[in-house]
Formats: sequence, C-alpha cells, structure tokens
Amino acid sequence: MSIRPHRIAVIPGDGIGKEVVPAGLQVLDAAAARFDVPLEYEHFDFASADYWLAHGTMLPDDWFETLRGFDAIYFGAVGWPDVVPDHVSLWGSLIQFRRRFDQYISLRPCRLLPGIPSPLVGRAPGDIDFVVVRENTEGEYSSIGGKIFHDTDREVVVQQTVMTRTGVDRVLRYAFELASRRERRKITSATKSNGITISMPYWDERFAAMGEQFPEVERDQFHIDILAANFVLHPDWFDVVVASNLFGDILSDLGPACTGTIAVAPSANINPDGLFPSLFEPVHGSAPDIAGKGIANPIGQIWCGAMMLDHLGHPDASSAILAAIDTVLERAEPGILTPDVGGGGTTSSLTRAIADAVADAS
Amino acid sequence: MSIRPHRIAVIPGDGIGKEVVPAGLQVLDAAAARFDVPLEYEHFDFASADYWLAHGTMLPDDWFETLRGFDAIYFGAVGWPDVVPDHVSLWGSLIQFRRRFDQYISLRPCRLLPGIPSPLVGRAPGDIDFVVVRENTEGEYSSIGGKIFHDTDREVVVQQTVMTRTGVDRVLRYAFELASRRERRKITSATKSNGITISMPYWDERFAAMGEQFPEVERDQFHIDILAANFVLHPDWFDVVVASNLFGDILSDLGPACTGTIAVAPSANINPDGLFPSLFEPVHGSAPDIAGKGIANPIGQIWCGAMMLDHLGHPDASSAILAAIDTVLERAEPGILTPDVGGGGTTSSLTRAIADAVADAS
Ligand SMILES: CC(C)[C@H](C(=O)O)[C@@H](O)C(=O)O
Ligand SMILES: CC(C)[C@H](C(=O)O)[C@@H](O)C(=O)O
Repeated sequence: MSIRPHRIAVIPGDGIGKEVVPAGLQVLDAAAARFDVPLEYEHFDFASADYWLAHGTMLPDDWFETLRGFDAIYFGAVGWPDVVPDHVSLWGSLIQFRRRFDQYISLRPCRLLPGIPSPLVGRAPGDIDFVVVRENTEGEYSSIGGKIFHDTDREVVVQQTVMTRTGVDRVLRYAFELASRRERRKITSATKSNGITISMPYWDERFAAMGEQFPEVERDQFHIDILAANFVLHPDWFDVVVASNLFGDILSDLGPACTGTIAVAPSANINPDGLFPSLFEPVHGSAPDIAGKGIANPIGQIWCGAMMLDHLGHPDASSAILAAIDTVLERAEPGILTPDVGGGGTTSSLTRAIADAVADAS
Repeated sequence: MSIRPHRIAVIPGDGIGKEVVPAGLQVLDAAAARFDVPLEYEHFDFASADYWLAHGTMLPDDWFETLRGFDAIYFGAVGWPDVVPDHVSLWGSLIQFRRRFDQYISLRPCRLLPGIPSPLVGRAPGDIDFVVVRENTEGEYSSIGGKIFHDTDREVVVQQTVMTRTGVDRVLRYAFELASRRERRKITSATKSNGITISMPYWDERFAAMGEQFPEVERDQFHIDILAANFVLHPDWFDVVVASNLFGDILSDLGPACTGTIAVAPSANINPDGLFPSLFEPVHGSAPDIAGKGIANPIGQIWCGAMMLDHLGHPDASSAILAAIDTVLERAEPGILTPDVGGGGTTSSLTRAIADAVADAS
C-alpha cells in the first residue's frame, strides 16, 4: 500500500509492561500483515523507573515535542514503587500525557470473555458487555487546594473539584454519540447529586441537556453508591456508562472486576479531535510480583492494540484481534493459557496462539 | 428494673419505612422483655413527605431541641420523589440530623447471612464479615463552592472537599479502636492519593500516624478503584474498612451488594461522645414500588434495632436479635420469608418469626 504509515510511539514502561508490549506488537504485526495496515513503530525508554534512575525525571524535557507528531502511543505500564513513589511516576508521566495531549476521553470496555470465570454467579459471555466513558482531564483530579494551620489541631485541608462546561459537555457528547452507534442505544450517567450538591447537579443538568440532542438514546442515571452496587447485582443493565474522572476511575476497575478480567482489560485515553496522539494502555499495572517471569497475561495489551487499530480507522483488523482472543480463550488449551487464567503456559505461548489466529482471520 | 428507661425517638418517614419501623419495634419489644431492657418510645411524623405536604418543610423549627434529649433515634426511610425532590427531603432531614447531632461515624456491617444468596461465586456465610466505618460529616460533602460565567461556554463549577484534623482523626481513632476489639484486628483504609493529590495524601498521613498508636492492629490501604474491585474479588480480605464520606458511601452500598443483602443491611449514624442521640436506619430507602403492600423485608430495620441496643449498652439483647435473624433465615420457611428472599410471606410473618426466636433466646 502506498498510504502514509501510522506512526506509533511504543513505551513499555516498567515491570510486565516490558513483557506484554512486545507481545502486543507481535499481534499488531500479524493484524497489519493480514489487513494491509501500514504501521511504523518508534521505541522509547522514558516513563519508567530505569529512566528515572538514570535521569532523575520520568520524561525528557522535550517529550511533548517528541511525541506530539505520532498517530498513537502504545503504552505498557508505569510504576515501580521500590524505586520511585507512585505519585511521582504517575504524575510525572501518564497524567502528563492525558493532560497535555488533552486525552479527555478514557474508554474502558467491560466484557465477559469466554473461559475467563466471572466472580458473579450465573453470568456467561454475552451477559456483560458495556463500556465506561470516563472524563479524563478535570473534575475531582484538579490539584487545586491546600492546607492551613499546619501541624495543629486546627489543621484544615481543602481540595477543589472543577468542572467546566467545555469539559463536561465534550465527554457527554462523546458518550452519547458512542451510545447512538451501539445496538442497545442506552446510556447511564454516574452521579451523586444527592450528596455532592454543587458539582454533581451541574453534571446532571448537562447530561439532561445533552440527552435532548440524542432522542434516540435511552438514558438513565444512578448515584454512584447504588450504581456500584448495580454493577454487581445487574451488570446486564448497562451499555454505555458515562462518568466524571473519579467515578469513572472507580467504575472502570469495578466493571472489569465483575467480568473477572481486571488482568486482561484494556483502556484508551483518547483525544477525539485528533490534535494530539491518543494513548492505549492496559488497566493492569506493572505487577512487580510476577515481572520478569515471562508469565504475564498479554491479553490486556493485545486488546489495547485492537482499540488502537479501531481508533486509527481499521475496524476489520481490530475485530479480527478481538475474535482471535475469543477463539484462543474458547479453545482453553492449558499449555497455551497463562497461569492467571488457569493455564500452565507463558506470555509467549498465549501471544503466539493469538497472533496465529489473527493471521488466519477470514 | 428501676433504672431510667432509654428514651427512643421513632421516626418512620416515608414508604416502607412506615411498615418496617413497627416491625422493628415488635422485635425490640421482644428483646426488651427477654433481657429486661427498659425502652420508652416517642413517635414523630416529621421527616416525611406527608409532613412536607402539610407544612412545607421536612422538620419543625424546634426539631433540634425536641430530639436532642433522646438516647437514640430509630429511623425508617426518607424520600418520596413524586412529592418532594430527594435533595430537599434528604438535606432537609437526614443530613441535618447527621450534621447537627454530630453523628460523625456511619457504621455499616457487611455480613453474608444464611439463606440470602450472594451474587458472588462460591461465597458462604462466614466468608464475608466486615464493617465499613464512614466519616459522616465533612469531606466531599462540604456544600462549599459555586458557579461562574453562568450559561456561557466559559461556565465553571467548583466544589470543595474539606478535611479537618479533628474530623479525620476522630473517625480513624474510632475505626482503629473498633478493629482492636475485633478478632482479626485488621484495618483497611480507602484512599485515592495517586489521583486526588491534596486531600487524600492528608488522609493517608493521618491514617499512618493513628496506626502508630495501635500497633496491635494490622493495617493496609488501597486506592478506591482497586478497593472496589477487591470487594468483589476478595471480600474475605476485609475486617474494618475506614473511609471518607464519599468513599464510605460507595463502599457501604457495594459491600452489602456483594453479600446480596442490600435490602436487609443496617446502618448506624453515631455520635460516640454521647452528646447527642445516635440514629439507626436501614440502608434501603422508602421503596415506592413495594410500599403499602405489606411485603417489605423488615430485616434491615430489625438489625438496626440490634445495633441500637448494642450502642445503648445491651450487647446480649443485641446478639439475641442477630442470632434470631440467622435462625429464621436458616429455617428458610417459604411461608415466612418475604418475596425478595424467595418466600411467599409478608413483613408481618417474618417479623413474628424473628420476634418469637428472640423471646425464646437462651
Ligand atoms: C441519600 C444520600 C445523601 C446518602 C448519602 O450519600 O449519605 C445515602 O446514600 C446514604 O448513604 O445514607
Ligand atoms: C494511577 C492513577 C492516577 C490512575 C487514575 O486514577 O486515573 C489509574 O487508577 C487509572 O485509572 O488509570
């Protein structure tokens, strides 16, 4: 093909990130070959504890200019608390990417996969299939606030939640558009306007206003407490769930937990305007306990590759990867699967099986 | 007995509150008779939609003086959205009680009961038995904040989270003391200091400092996202869970959901200093859909009675009620149990069975 290749910045980060990222690339390569998708990778060692040890920062000074021209960032995991405190490593890399590249959408699918046991009674693949759309730049993660009367009994700490019309409306619009393209056309808003009585009623107001522009989408809302309960009690109720930064963070760990897939869940940090690269990272972290053993489950990272291909305009290649994951999980060969899903295989056996299934895709 | 009776203010509120409160009193009476506990009730009709319709307010002007002399408040449920918007009814009653009576502890046990199916695979009674200790007066529920640039694209809404040393330390101390009296002596703190970087690190700092005063208590902490996931994946890990107002709110709905008992879970809003009455209310609401049918499950309200007796210094009477609930659920007689737990009985059949079991307590 003669079209310009998609330029992908590859950042493995820490721990199992360094094992699952190469695995993910292997499957991406298979999909690229099978569907004629031109991909071009460039590898970076920053956003890692090793980089921090060598340079005393998580990122080089020119990271923004270095990365901004890429079409996407394929990211592993950052965090190695023995070397760098988490708030330093995360705020020094991942959160910078989200903010500076205005990746205002965090997208996290929650889908029960074949062969991955759900912790919920009586749920089978097909029963749970929703996506959490999380606001990813403002809200409860504002960093505005401070402390007064230090170290006395009068000590008071305040922190602001900040919601802007721009910030709220754009995530709501994205979620409604997504819902209107899905089969069930249903959207659920996470709120807490009965307790958090200034910012959350505003969220509700904007949700209702945006809803009027999408009459074809059925909408409801729950307070976050009962919504969390309903993820466990009625996960089949949900299709698209839209939430503020904090609520989305909670729901997008809880959702995968309910599908038993926290180790294999993907996420996308998206700048829908296309002004900056979007970033694709698995929900799991660097997993120091199993890092270096070659047994990390690569499915989260591979699934991220599928989300990235979809984002880059290759839905067929994306679907083929998802189908390949399903196929290999359905086969349930113990020698292939990694230990976390009951097998005796390795990162590489599972990766190879999925890559082969992608290569065979019709 | 010649000791001064405990004076209890009884407030049924709305909907099924009016059905389960009398049921709860029936069981309290049985326990009082069996264990010689002198109880004296006074009934109030405020904090209800009926009162609001008649008076245009949720509470009389002198509610604070009227209630403050009581030893406890036995509360049903408030909320009837067809008549009063929830934020009006809740902030006009329940939240007032919590704040003005400085009920700074919200205590919510999460226990898998016999005969109540858990939505979690493979969990049996005994596997899940923890308590959420929630800060109940400050934090994310501050009501400080506002809006600027109304109705324009520049619209910005801010809301403060406020944590005081006094407020944080007293809930942590209560939770550590509770943990040190329990068998497992374990405490888990809910945090989000990796995302909410001013108030939550302060919470962590105070948690660590308080922990040094309780070396016998094992402590750990999780960010709220993974903590919520672990409620589903590893509910057996937890003993005492201490959390801010918002996080405690979420966890104390999610916890009961994991035990399948959201309709039968109790809660206590406690002023441990004994300066003001504490308030005991089930976690469920007024349940407009089943109100008036006589089929509401009274166990949440009855369990609240057990918590109240414990608070008033009658652990034997309290334990007898808990044991009676277990006994009746274990018997699992379909004619006795209410429909929500698979029976064909009524509020009154289930109440009578529990009251009888209390009367027979050894
Ligand atoms: C009704 C609401 C304000 C309240 C809260 O969030 O505190 C409720 O959810 C609860 O947990 O008692
Ligand atoms: C590490 C942390 C700051 C981050 C977040 O809360 O956004 C993580 O939990 C996530 O969801 O990506």
